[in-house]
Amino acid sequence: MAFLYLVSPSERLTPAYHRFARIKETEDISIFQAKGRVLAKDIYSSENIPPLPRSTVDGYAVKSEDTMGASPETPAMLLKIGEIHISELPKEKIAPGQTMYIPTGGILPEGADAVEMIEYTEEIPPYVEMYRSVAPGENTVQPGEDIKEGMLLISKGTKLHARHIGLLAYAGITTVTVYRKPKIAIFSTGDEIVPPDTKPGPGKMRDANGPMLKSLFADMGEILNVSPTIIPDEREAMEKALKEALETADIVMLSGGSSAGTRDLVVSVIESMSKSEILFHGLRISPGKPTIVAVAGGKPILGLPGHPASCFVSAKLIGTNIVEYISGSDRQTPFVFIRGVMKTEVYSKPGIEEYLRVKLDFSTSPPTVEPMITQSGITYTLAMADGLARIPPEKEGLSAGEEVEVMLL
Amino acid sequence: MAFLYLVSPSERLTPAYHRFARIKETEDISIFQAKGRVLAKDIYSSENIPPLPRSTVDGYAVKSEDTMGASPETPAMLLKIGEIHISELPKEKIAPGQTMYIPTGGILPEGADAVEMIEYTEEIPPYVEMYRSVAPGENTVQPGEDIKEGMLLISKGTKLHARHIGLLAYAGITTVTVYRKPKIAIFSTGDEIVPPDTKPGPGKMRDANGPMLKSLFADMGEILNVSPTIIPDEREAMEKALKEALETADIVMLSGGSSAGTRDLVVSVIESMSKSEILFHGLRISPGKPTIVAVAGGKPILGLPGHPASCFVSAKLIGTNIVEYISGSDRQTPFVFIRGVMKTEVYSKPGIEEYLRVKLDFSTSPPTVEPMITQSGITYTLAMADGLARIPPEKEGLSAGEEVEVMLL
Repeated sequence: MAFLYLVSPSERLTPAYHRFARIKETEDISIFQAKGRVLAKDIYSSENIPPLPRSTVDGYAVKSEDTMGASPETPAMLLKIGEIHISELPKEKIAPGQTMYIPTGGILPEGADAVEMIEYTEEIPPYVEMYRSVAPGENTVQPGEDIKEGMLLISKGTKLHARHIGLLAYAGITTVTVYRKPKIAIFSTGDEIVPPDTKPGPGKMRDANGPMLKSLFADMGEILNVSPTIIPDEREAMEKALKEALETADIVMLSGGSSAGTRDLVVSVIESMSKSEILFHGLRISPGKPTIVAVAGGKPILGLPGHPASCFVSAKLIGTNIVEYISGSDRQTPFVFIRGVMKTEVYSKPGIEEYLRVKLDFSTSPPTVEPMITQSGITYTLAMADGLARIPPEKEGLSAGEEVEVMLL
Repeated sequence: MAFLYLVSPSERLTPAYHRFARIKETEDISIFQAKGRVLAKDIYSSENIPPLPRSTVDGYAVKSEDTMGASPETPAMLLKIGEIHISELPKEKIAPGQTMYIPTGGILPEGADAVEMIEYTEEIPPYVEMYRSVAPGENTVQPGEDIKEGMLLISKGTKLHARHIGLLAYAGITTVTVYRKPKIAIFSTGDEIVPPDTKPGPGKMRDANGPMLKSLFADMGEILNVSPTIIPDEREAMEKALKEALETADIVMLSGGSSAGTRDLVVSVIESMSKSEILFHGLRISPGKPTIVAVAGGKPILGLPGHPASCFVSAKLIGTNIVEYISGSDRQTPFVFIRGVMKTEVYSKPGIEEYLRVKLDFSTSPPTVEPMITQSGITYTLAMADGLARIPPEKEGLSAGEEVEVMLL
């Protein structure tokens, strides 16, 4: 058994959020297309559900007072005057001493205020014997008990899940007003980066970050078809790409710039954009340290690290929360950490929150956490890892047997 | 801070799994479409990455032996014979006593076996002073260190995440063979059920389960356009719908049958299908108890409860794992539970694993768990709940202040 807790690495971003513009444009879509979308208007119910009292069991509709004191020894004996069918309004009323068969979901006949479960009855025509007393309202649903007319069903800012969509369908609401999806522009930068479908020349490498980021954010927004997707380390090319992207995108992400020189170029190009400001330059996390968070005219610009593992951690810890924020969602998806025990000791730099790629062994309790050898196989170990073990900034490492928090991947 | 652990409610299903046919048909798709799909073939690397040794820092390429004993007091003094550009094969070799500037990612010139970081150097043309000794291989990546030719990159049965797609792109693999998505047929049954866009007549209610289930499984398979989607409680109609669905679908889900009579009909109709068998009838969970798990010619048939909350719990705990299994995935997505403390006491039936809809208050540590009043608002409370609190079968309830496990929604 693994013990988990929640953290919100977005907390460090909270002071920056008010600088980002949230999506305001809305669209009306079918509930069948609405999963994962963010509601742009409060939704109220326009009716009582159920509109009439119903039975929640198979049994007999009764006046509860007629069953008072009923027991197997002294059963109540009621006259059966008919049967209620599930999709019909009952034709008869119940008078004192009378009863009618009622199925689950059947509408209570006038005069009845409760239902005796079939398990506690025996039919002895034309009577029904009842072996248990029922209280007023027992085994029934009252009008509006599931949904009351005029009640707030789902509030603005809610990210719609399957169960919300079930509720909307139940309430007869088949079209909802949601915020449009954020448009996300994703670039990879660097003279050394070539597209995945090419053979890299000397000193070149294929673009891992672009495809990874596009997959990571595919469910959260509309990934724009930017061209080119790979920008060389040249001021003019980068300025042109960023300027064009800011015209249509709601958020721009650039990965790369692993060398200090390129990072400086990215910073300087961002600063040259209209109404721009660098909000952070460098985060106290590793990998993920060389992350730039900026804004231009309310649009977030993320300068993500070039190393794939670093890019992934930063995109996951910082990027997803920013995209959720601009989407209009009023709740951040929490990150889930489990608690495990280190198999071997590791060292880390104090002052930095370190995320080690680890394998987890769930056959022990708590699970055993084994750091992967991360010097080699940067991209490979990231793909193979079960989680990211967090070493808090105040620590200089973890010893074998020590407790550790691991973010599940 | 909330403490969490993992459970696999699928364990109870494990003995049934071998009865279900897994998808065998495959398709080749672009990695850009591959997120969430299950790999149908092992993927091996066809090359060394990097193909040549590279620097991991900005600095100077050196013969490590030339830096032996170097310190700020006794620096090594090397002759700078040139600069390496990031996307070029070095033109010169390094002889003893020589060095070249090298950027991060630059290819090591012949003769060099390490890189001195720029931070520990000073250029005094034509020499470079170095204040630190480096070990052979230091600050370099060796050929194949990230990915070795012939190594297994990702194994068959892996559900592809963003980081796998990054790895594939990096390795130059842009097309992957995946299992086709499972085809899922979803029906709602019951004379009382009407489509969401209609006004229910007496004793009728709108279909919540159909839209909810379609949303829940939308990411996991292809939801078939079955017609009709709502089947009345009639043997012939149900037989026809189920038989037709089994011709194309890989898994069939029917919700409804809240009354014992309808459940019996569903069971009897399933039994009338070719090569069919009921594997379970009733699960020891609440809500979710009246769940039927069956198989017909290797295709799972799920008879889910009619109550939306019951249907949701059963679909989530049982349905998602069965769909994952037939998809070819070799790993089940674990359910995540957090540990909280009950705000009020609740009662439950012993022998049943009960899932209460609850609100969570994260302002306390561990979070406070407040049961929602579930007699009313069955559909509404499900949509509004933050989680499902689990009362183990051996308990008769939980007292205020007692620890409880909550599945996050």
